[in-house]
Amino acid sequence: MVYNCTKRTIFFISDSTGITVEALGLCLLSHFEGVTMRQVRMPFVDSEQKAREAVEIINATQAKDGVRAILCMTIVNPSIRALFQLTGGMCLDMFGTFVNPLSSELGMPANETIGMSRNVGGSEYRDRIEAINFTLGHDDGISDNGLQEAEAILVGVSRSGKTPASLYMAMQFGIRTANYPIIPEDLERDTLPGTLANHRDKIFGLTIDPERLHKIRTERRPNSRYASLDNCKEEVRMAEVMMHREGINMIDSTSRSVEEISSMIVQQLTMRQNKRLVGY
Amino acid sequence: MVYNCTKRTIFFISDSTGITVEALGLCLLSHFEGVTMRQVRMPFVDSEQKAREAVEIINATQAKDGVRAILCMTIVNPSIRALFQLTGGMCLDMFGTFVNPLSSELGMPANETIGMSRNVGGSEYRDRIEAINFTLGHDDGISDNGLQEAEAILVGVSRSGKTPASLYMAMQFGIRTANYPIIPEDLERDTLPGTLANHRDKIFGLTIDPERLHKIRTERRPNSRYASLDNCKEEVRMAEVMMHREGINMIDSTSRSVEEISSMIVQQLTMRQNKRLVGY
Repeated sequence: MVYNCTKRTIFFISDSTGITVEALGLCLLSHFEGVTMRQVRMPFVDSEQKAREAVEIINATQAKDGVRAILCMTIVNPSIRALFQLTGGMCLDMFGTFVNPLSSELGMPANETIGMSRNVGGSEYRDRIEAINFTLGHDDGISDNGLQEAEAILVGVSRSGKTPASLYMAMQFGIRTANYPIIPEDLERDTLPGTLANHRDKIFGLTIDPERLHKIRTERRPNSRYASLDNCKEEVRMAEVMMHREGINMIDSTSRSVEEISSMIVQQLTMRQNKRLVGY
Repeated sequence: MVYNCTKRTIFFISDSTGITVEALGLCLLSHFEGVTMRQVRMPFVDSEQKAREAVEIINATQAKDGVRAILCMTIVNPSIRALFQLTGGMCLDMFGTFVNPLSSELGMPANETIGMSRNVGGSEYRDRIEAINFTLGHDDGISDNGLQEAEAILVGVSRSGKTPASLYMAMQFGIRTANYPIIPEDLERDTLPGTLANHRDKIFGLTIDPERLHKIRTERRPNSRYASLDNCKEEVRMAEVMMHREGINMIDSTSRSVEEISSMIVQQLTMRQNKRLVGY
């Protein structure tokens, strides 16, 4: 079944950044086979005046599309939300839908101020910025001090996906993540460098399909030995043998997004913590 | 009104990373004054077996808490969802709530496979990784080639928040973002460096409260002239005068999160694009 969607628009409307509502909206949409729509972001709609301007754009779009739009919304203020309902668009109202049940459950009213930035300057936020700085300072190589301070250490051959994953872990979860690239010399020595060996509990290995690695490396250095399929196969094989023998948890980055890899690592890191929590 | 919440738990349950459901859940919760709960992440719950294990933990937690838990869920498969409803916890079911209305609207059934990683290897995903690499390669200084290739350029005094914002823009939006730190020499010359002046349309300025800057710099280099309040005041003042005169849009990073700063920049970048879209 093919859905004719070339002339339909999905709006991501938020009184804040709109990042969450866009992620959720795209996730919902991804479960409808073959449906792709024109996407329009509308962040920071935090006043009735801005809402009215947004509503005009939505109305004009619906008139041209000839079909009503999908409106994914996280708007706290009910009177601003109401303005969007007047468009006749299909409202997926993430906030309005859940806030009333939650209010009853907690036995207290929700306040209607926009809460996104209230933690800026707070300790959690500062930790996150510090983690980013730490990770930037310990990308592709690492000192002994760095290993001590790191909360997680990613190892893997060059271009196996360590840098994006470690930055995401710092940015999303505030985890100080260092990288250690496994280079051919390490593979020949066939053992973890001495300094790393003392931190096995924080180490996570990334591996990757050699064909994919070959493609990625070829974009960087075409026709090099570094990028050749034979060399990629050999490096990946040796790295996997080494990680397996050293008892390092390995994650295959080939078909996983940065978010998935990071979440898998964080899950493993927090598993003990969760168990302790439950047994408090 | 103070809500006694020291003994209540909120679970973020997902068949994928759980990042979106956690963001939305925390956003909802932030609108209930003074409510903080123990938070437990449960990502990758993608089978009935894993769901049963999760349900056991939830039941044990509820028994100890003496109050039902809040379950924020994005689970695609209805039979896995149903297992969580049996706990008697309060379900905020982000997926189940919206997928049926969307299905009716689109006139097609939703598929129940987990769709998160299907774009890995696709062009959008590759762009994002390339943007991260570009941004890492053009942090704190920039070549002429870099300026050409950049989709956005952040300028501001040292420690005004350029690096986290530019990485977030690359990671979240796939925008190749370069940084240009405004150093005292630039301020004395009182003009944009020649190469930058050709790219005004992509430049965004970050500014920051001098007191806050003083604190941040003091953590890095205590008792230095660089970190002194007088110097911070003077650098910020001169930078603001320069950006104002050069017609550079300025964003104050003092009380804004990385997400907000990035979204504001992206909004300004895409504003023209949106207008073109509507007039198609």
